Amino acid sequence: MKLFYPKSVAVIGATKKEGKVGYAILKNLLKFNGKIYPVNPKYDNIFNLKCYKSVLDIDDEIDLAIIAVPNVAVPQVLEECGKKGIKYAVIISAGFSEVGNYELEEEVKNIIKKYGIRVIGPNCLGIMNTHINLNATFSKIFPPKGGVSIVSQSGAVLNAILDIAPLLNIGFSKVVSLGNKIDIQESDLLEYFLEDDDTEIIVLYIEGLKDKRFLKVAKKVAKKKPIIVLKAGRSEEGKRAAKSHTGSLAGDDVVYDTAFKEAGIIRAKTFEELIDLIHIFSTQPIMEKNEIGVITNAGGFGVLAADACADHNLKLANFEKSTIEKLKEVLPETANITNPLDIIGDATPERYEKATKILLEDKNIHGLLVILTPQEMTEPLKVAEILANLKRDKPLITSFVGGVSVKGAKSYLRKHGIPAYITPENGIKALSYLYKYSLIKVKEDYDPYLDKIEKEFLKIYEENKEIIKSLLDRPNEYKAKQLLKLYGFDIPKGYLAKSKYEAIEYAKKFKKVVLKIVSPQILHKTEAHGVIINPDDVGEAYDMLIKNALEYGKRKNINVEIEGVLVEEFIDGDKVELIIGGKRDEIFGPVIMVGLGGVFVEVLKDVAFGIYPITKDFAHEMLKSLKSYKILEGVRGREGKDIDYIIETLMKISVFMNIHKEIKELDLNPIFVFKKGGCIADARIIC
Amino acid sequence: MKLFYPKSVAVIGATKKEGKVGYAILKNLLKFNGKIYPVNPKYDNIFNLKCYKSVLDIDDEIDLAIIAVPNVAVPQVLEECGKKGIKYAVIISAGFSEVGNYELEEEVKNIIKKYGIRVIGPNCLGIMNTHINLNATFSKIFPPKGGVSIVSQSGAVLNAILDIAPLLNIGFSKVVSLGNKIDIQESDLLEYFLEDDDTEIIVLYIEGLKDKRFLKVAKKVAKKKPIIVLKAGRSEEGKRAAKSHTGSLAGDDVVYDTAFKEAGIIRAKTFEELIDLIHIFSTQPIMEKNEIGVITNAGGFGVLAADACADHNLKLANFEKSTIEKLKEVLPETANITNPLDIIGDATPERYEKATKILLEDKNIHGLLVILTPQEMTEPLKVAEILANLKRDKPLITSFVGGVSVKGAKSYLRKHGIPAYITPENGIKALSYLYKYSLIKVKEDYDPYLDKIEKEFLKIYEENKEIIKSLLDRPNEYKAKQLLKLYGFDIPKGYLAKSKYEAIEYAKKFKKVVLKIVSPQILHKTEAHGVIINPDDVGEAYDMLIKNALEYGKRKNINVEIEGVLVEEFIDGDKVELIIGGKRDEIFGPVIMVGLGGVFVEVLKDVAFGIYPITKDFAHEMLKSLKSYKILEGVRGREGKDIDYIIETLMKISVFMNIHKEIKELDLNPIFVFKKGGCIADARIIC
Repeated sequence: MKLFYPKSVAVIGATKKEGKVGYAILKNLLKFNGKIYPVNPKYDNIFNLKCYKSVLDIDDEIDLAIIAVPNVAVPQVLEECGKKGIKYAVIISAGFSEVGNYELEEEVKNIIKKYGIRVIGPNCLGIMNTHINLNATFSKIFPPKGGVSIVSQSGAVLNAILDIAPLLNIGFSKVVSLGNKIDIQESDLLEYFLEDDDTEIIVLYIEGLKDKRFLKVAKKVAKKKPIIVLKAGRSEEGKRAAKSHTGSLAGDDVVYDTAFKEAGIIRAKTFEELIDLIHIFSTQPIMEKNEIGVITNAGGFGVLAADACADHNLKLANFEKSTIEKLKEVLPETANITNPLDIIGDATPERYEKATKILLEDKNIHGLLVILTPQEMTEPLKVAEILANLKRDKPLITSFVGGVSVKGAKSYLRKHGIPAYITPENGIKALSYLYKYSLIKVKEDYDPYLDKIEKEFLKIYEENKEIIKSLLDRPNEYKAKQLLKLYGFDIPKGYLAKSKYEAIEYAKKFKKVVLKIVSPQILHKTEAHGVIINPDDVGEAYDMLIKNALEYGKRKNINVEIEGVLVEEFIDGDKVELIIGGKRDEIFGPVIMVGLGGVFVEVLKDVAFGIYPITKDFAHEMLKSLKSYKILEGVRGREGKDIDYIIETLMKISVFMNIHKEIKELDLNPIFVFKKGGCIADARIIC
Repeated sequence: MKLFYPKSVAVIGATKKEGKVGYAILKNLLKFNGKIYPVNPKYDNIFNLKCYKSVLDIDDEIDLAIIAVPNVAVPQVLEECGKKGIKYAVIISAGFSEVGNYELEEEVKNIIKKYGIRVIGPNCLGIMNTHINLNATFSKIFPPKGGVSIVSQSGAVLNAILDIAPLLNIGFSKVVSLGNKIDIQESDLLEYFLEDDDTEIIVLYIEGLKDKRFLKVAKKVAKKKPIIVLKAGRSEEGKRAAKSHTGSLAGDDVVYDTAFKEAGIIRAKTFEELIDLIHIFSTQPIMEKNEIGVITNAGGFGVLAADACADHNLKLANFEKSTIEKLKEVLPETANITNPLDIIGDATPERYEKATKILLEDKNIHGLLVILTPQEMTEPLKVAEILANLKRDKPLITSFVGGVSVKGAKSYLRKHGIPAYITPENGIKALSYLYKYSLIKVKEDYDPYLDKIEKEFLKIYEENKEIIKSLLDRPNEYKAKQLLKLYGFDIPKGYLAKSKYEAIEYAKKFKKVVLKIVSPQILHKTEAHGVIINPDDVGEAYDMLIKNALEYGKRKNINVEIEGVLVEEFIDGDKVELIIGGKRDEIFGPVIMVGLGGVFVEVLKDVAFGIYPITKDFAHEMLKSLKSYKILEGVRGREGKDIDYIIETLMKISVFMNIHKEIKELDLNPIFVFKKGGCIADARIIC
């Protein structure tokens, strides 16, 4: 891509004034292995380079324009870029949607569309490619060369990462500050990084996505290369803060979390975790099994490492017999040969070397943490040198715990590609991600059964367009259920009674009956005393429901329109109550939620989420992730319930939501699930 | 205490040989503001100090003996100390219970008992008192003077903390390495630190306690001074590791956790958290409210800080009107005046100064985090200098996020008493502890109602000793219930039938009946089909139970002794099933557990713990900490249950467990709780 490998770069807004962005960028570009053309009508030359009045005056082909002019000048500059035939531009200039200047941003969008210019920004730090010494940013820091490509919505967060990188010896390939993202999105860059041989690991800092292709592309990329993301705005507090930041609305965090999981993206929860993850993924191989070894010269830190193993799903490996034999030869008699291996407070560099070598050879051990604390005999730097020189094909990380005494050794280790964590627990946590990565399953989108449902539902949709349209016009419970019935979902038998006499007649059809008020103003029927089960006198019950509804209206001071009373068969039997919900997300599409009803969802918030399409396997995964799954399987002598019915319903609801783009929210609550089959006892659709 | 303020110290095992412990200790002691007497029969003098063959040869009174001789020589040395009248000794020497040498440790214990010597160790690093330059350890590091007193079971962990201290400018008062703890325990030191004016904060590193006074003393101390603890061996993995370390058995972690909570101790989960906590508590005042302010020059980090606030129960304060006015005057027009306050990427030191001053004056703000990332205009060191000079009475912490560019500024801040965290999230987490500390309530032991129960129960116990003895002899369900009945607990009416005919007669007394097998070998009755509810034919049911029990015995290949069939009134009605359990802990005494039965305890592990004595308020706290508490209060139209009954039962069971020291475990499962009252439907006692 010429964006990252330009032969010639124009810097529009280049200047001689120190402290200005246009100065910093040009200065940073002086080391670039290509041609640079400053553009600024005020100057004839800058830094001994000829300066042009406009890109149109340049006699050469320009691959990339870096734009650092005042915001109001951007449209004209882009017009000129367009006329010149420049295909890529990075707009550094700020002062667009992030400060409420939406019109100017629209104008820019129209121009780049007209000319087909692909744009990064505006309101960004710029881009880098270490492989051709391209620093097209105004950041002082140009990181070491390496395999990490990073895309950040925030220039400052990016800058902080680049500033830390040299200390940890993290090397970068492509660096992108995305800013307001009017054109190029995360998915465009992910696709490029997938093919880019110099990119081994992809890191994203996201505040809010605008990118509808993200999930699909990320799934493809994550199968080949690790993607690590830090998404800010997890909390309500954070979201409020985000709104006044880059002008992007942070989406509902649970949806992002679901999307990341489905895409196989590793999510860091904090900035520290992000750095630790980049550090370990950029220096260590993946770990296929979770059994590790720990070496320490301080028992206490061994115990803390063991605690951390339990917290992060790692196990302390059992040593091979031969390992135990070999260790006995090299360790003092008082040493216990267990894992963590305490090589005792007086451990010399030689003892560290021997113990580490022996554990690296043990086939039961898939990763190794070496802990050192400064004690009387300890020589931290020598141990560091020894570790750096060991041959190995397994992850080897360290935690030299201390301050003054271990500073030099930690730097040495990091310089030589061995992560040095400030505590054993941080080390174990990072190591655990190497294993977690091997467990990642990118969610599949295709499933023949799902495909069958899609085709069936589309057919039903095509054949019933008119009926569906009327059912989705101000849908009440009755209409919602009729619509679901049309698609073959099981609902209780029922009729909408418009009068007391109709209600009495309908009720005769059922052994047991339930009467429910139907009114667009009454969303929570129990609150309005709008449900009566098995009344002795159906007529009286009908009147009561109407009366209750009107009283509810008075109480709430709203005009309650009564559309009738739903007379339904009352479904009995040993059942579990389930909730399935659906919500349309602007970026990711239909998001489906499932959980057990009652206290499980209300008190314990025990729910699982999935994004359309939901395959059979994935629906099952969703259910299995519920703490209350055991109840579906059957506990304490109670029979299990029809899990296949739930799976099928989840799949079908995801398809249903996808077909009916007009449905914003869907609430099936409760769904009764029996030993065999089930039925949707209540349904709400919001358009 | 002469231990920490000796006028004269004898170093037994002092030596001229570099690299030896006895050399390092003596060398460290040279700066001590008191008299030092090396003791070693091999030398006449060391470091120009006269060396004695034995303490008995010293012509002066000795306040403290530091013992660093081979383990086998320790008993004789102690005998001499005893004869000399030395009151305090620190045994540095290793080679006792931690390597299985229990006999030698016993011998030492007997000697110190004989002479009344108070001892630290053995197998420890030693002790320090910075206020008199006393470094009676073999550690190279002598920390700066300050208000932190620390007690560590591990010398190496202690050493690591001391090594980090100068980097963060954490100052220490008393430093103690406890080792095998044959005499002086944590509680002894806590009591001393409570009275010690130089101790402001107490830090403990614990692997396992031996100290039965710990909880009681900690409660007293924590009311006056913050106690911060890191307890290793949280997990099973960790416990395994701990066993092979200091020779101490790490106790059940949940019991420790309960004890720490009740004592008002702040528990760090990891070593990093421990350091962060020491850092903030030793430099910042407590925070009475949880509303804070955040200043940043990078919006992204503001969002991450906001996320962390939500994670750690802090709130972003609403600015006072006057604050907003003042900020408008000093910030650029494009700045959004919200919290976190983004003072924008080009923020100068002056802007940092003005914004920080304004927020420090805001009465809605109770703590402040200042974030800085290196950008083009940023001058980290100048900002650090400005912050260090601001007058303030609120916590002020910083996170200068970056590496190379902010290193110097971070050191400067730390040197001047302002914590500098590596990330905003770490800062927020630390700040949150200043607030959490203000919420700590040390559990009270006294409650007049509890007192009344104690007296009643003791009277019952005294008056029924013989009956109780027989009921506690191989207690089965029937006996357990009879014992509980004796103390006034509600149990269902019931009789132990020894024959079919008895069972039939007894059953006649009740409307509905339940029959249960009674056998010491059958602990899980349902597994043995040992319960029949409301049979049509009681006689048949009796036979069936006997048959099932014998078949169960065959299946399990055990000899099942049948003691009878319990014929009980079957209790019906709208109820919640509760579990109350009791377990006797060696260190802490009776530990009581409560939770809702069924899925709540089995699937969701939703339980709460308390240690005897359980007051009324505390019992209520326990219940309220359950996620399922809402069910007791009544949800979704179901009536609430008798919470007072549960509270009273918890209190009574704690007293019951305390009186009956022979009971190891107690299991009341289920207890039926109704709208009013309840009853213990099944009970198991293990002696």
